Amino acid sequence: MKRREFIKKAGVGAAAVAASAIAAPSVIAQKTYNWKMVTTWPPNLPVLQTGTERFAQRVKDATGGRINIQVYAGGELVPPLSTFDAVSDGTVECGSGAAYYWAGKTPACQWFSAVPFGLNAQGNNAWFYSGGGLKLWEEVYAPFNVVPRPQGNTGVQMGGWFRKEMNTIGDFNGLKMRIPGLGGKVIAGAGGTVVLLAGGEIFTSLERGVLDATEWVGPMHDLRMGFYKAAPYYYYPGWHEPGTTLEVIFNKKAYESLPKDLQVILDAVAMETNLWSLSEFESGNGAALQELITKHKVNLKQFPADMMDELRKLAKEVLEEEANKDPLARKVHDAFKKFKAQVGVWGTVSENAYYNVIADKFSLKG
Amino acid sequence: MKRREFIKKAGVGAAAVAASAIAAPSVIAQKTYNWKMVTTWPPNLPVLQTGTERFAQRVKDATGGRINIQVYAGGELVPPLSTFDAVSDGTVECGSGAAYYWAGKTPACQWFSAVPFGLNAQGNNAWFYSGGGLKLWEEVYAPFNVVPRPQGNTGVQMGGWFRKEMNTIGDFNGLKMRIPGLGGKVIAGAGGTVVLLAGGEIFTSLERGVLDATEWVGPMHDLRMGFYKAAPYYYYPGWHEPGTTLEVIFNKKAYESLPKDLQVILDAVAMETNLWSLSEFESGNGAALQELITKHKVNLKQFPADMMDELRKLAKEVLEEEANKDPLARKVHDAFKKFKAQVGVWGTVSENAYYNVIADKFSLKG
Repeated sequence: MKRREFIKKAGVGAAAVAASAIAAPSVIAQKTYNWKMVTTWPPNLPVLQTGTERFAQRVKDATGGRINIQVYAGGELVPPLSTFDAVSDGTVECGSGAAYYWAGKTPACQWFSAVPFGLNAQGNNAWFYSGGGLKLWEEVYAPFNVVPRPQGNTGVQMGGWFRKEMNTIGDFNGLKMRIPGLGGKVIAGAGGTVVLLAGGEIFTSLERGVLDATEWVGPMHDLRMGFYKAAPYYYYPGWHEPGTTLEVIFNKKAYESLPKDLQVILDAVAMETNLWSLSEFESGNGAALQELITKHKVNLKQFPADMMDELRKLAKEVLEEEANKDPLARKVHDAFKKFKAQVGVWGTVSENAYYNVIADKFSLKG
Repeated sequence: MKRREFIKKAGVGAAAVAASAIAAPSVIAQKTYNWKMVTTWPPNLPVLQTGTERFAQRVKDATGGRINIQVYAGGELVPPLSTFDAVSDGTVECGSGAAYYWAGKTPACQWFSAVPFGLNAQGNNAWFYSGGGLKLWEEVYAPFNVVPRPQGNTGVQMGGWFRKEMNTIGDFNGLKMRIPGLGGKVIAGAGGTVVLLAGGEIFTSLERGVLDATEWVGPMHDLRMGFYKAAPYYYYPGWHEPGTTLEVIFNKKAYESLPKDLQVILDAVAMETNLWSLSEFESGNGAALQELITKHKVNLKQFPADMMDELRKLAKEVLEEEANKDPLARKVHDAFKKFKAQVGVWGTVSENAYYNVIADKFSLKG
């Protein structure tokens, strides 16, 4: 065995010498990788699906065509919520979604997308890249042979569209609201009835009063859905999703089969797409909110501070419950809490204090 | 001439066919680029210089060694503030600094690093990548044969270290403060005496009372400088640099001589380094601020709201004056203002409202 390996290595060496002898500059044999990518997003969904297509295009451009990724939107190749399985079992080489979709597989994943009253985009990215968060995320997905990378961030979302004013925590009692994930568990804790509906069914349900309220994303996506025609009150801030991370996931074997330079390119393009998508959200949400206020006369309302305090208490209970589900979830929860405390005071004296200084420049309706 | 060009092209074609005939997978002739990079930063300066070194390493890794960038800190090859000239005239292929250093060459550059009471990191990135800001920046540097890319962001900086309490705008009258750039012009407008000192001279000057105050960066860098030993009051927020953008600049001819895939890699790695550095600042500043508060008992103080209003009025005048210096500066100023208005209300209902919700979780000293 050892002898054969030696011969193999020697052979490679000889070939390399021969190649460099034939041509200068250096000549390198390059393999082309034709990959498939599935996503949890509908076709053409701005930033989420289009950002994934951008990712694939940039990978192609940066690799000079050595990696060609064919992107399939949700349902085009596998059902949207089979994305993780398809990547895990090697049906496809990569996918895009958000970690909270996989809570049924491993509760620990829920800290890597959106935590009610958790970190915002800047905080999440700091945790991932400079605070050990991505290492933990890799640990959580490793048993599934899946390698995660942050690929986008929505920024702070909106609190949702409501058919009535929300004045106290009691107003959630009996409220029928479309709100998935941990946010939904918090609303259920406040006595609300959580309704899960596919995107296409929400508008009609809200308009007919089958729903009293719905959250979606932010102004850019909410405007497209036309919710302002069905519910007059548009509440902020989105305490339930204060900076939702979107992910690109790779099949571990496929990722590790790549030469090192191509792995670095995938990582770099994922990271630039993360920043690109947050920038698209910031810019697009700004423009869409102006349109909602000036053209559609939306009644923009802030959740009362007391209500936020009550919801935060409930969120803490929900997170503790999730953390108790297994040791890995506990480990991730504790690490997240620790990092949030590390950047908390800093956030207050930097971004928060600065926003407060410039905020009074803008008048809000409602 | 045309006939010779035809022969040259035909020759390339024949070589390519021959190469692909010899070996499958495809064989590509690849040139290696050995580049020099100079920076405005001192050796080992965290995030700014080390981030530039990270940029070079990632470029090497992502290109499989096709681009090797040798990084020289400020003064190692050319003086720090000759960075732009060295890149412009092709002495080196690339550099790293911040746009406001080049105000003497073109006043329009000042909107691409730090604008007093301007955009924060998230806003600046949205402007660059999704609001036309980077296109304008390219236009401003084009006459110098320089191609800019954002390579980092400090986040909101701190307001500075003061030997006395600052209660009203009148307290700036006669105050000797080390504060460069547009912020310095604002302080001068408030009656302060702006002192420019190299980094190594600041501490002693502050300790001896030659300076009454100094700004620097944020907690991570300020802690290293030991300013807490020389001035008891640490003020926030850094209204003068609310999200300073750091740049990588390329000599245009060098950048354009690269094949497309290598250009994309440079752009992608610059963009990921931009997000990486903001993440390092967020994480590192959080930890350093905790140390300053708990270990060094720093007196953390917020600038009064009235003072912020007065400084903002002065900043507006300073910016108008700079914008009047030439038509390009006016164009950039107007575009910046327009984008700031686009994301202003959105920032207030999203990040600002969310920070306010979580801020009361943190108690501040002072």
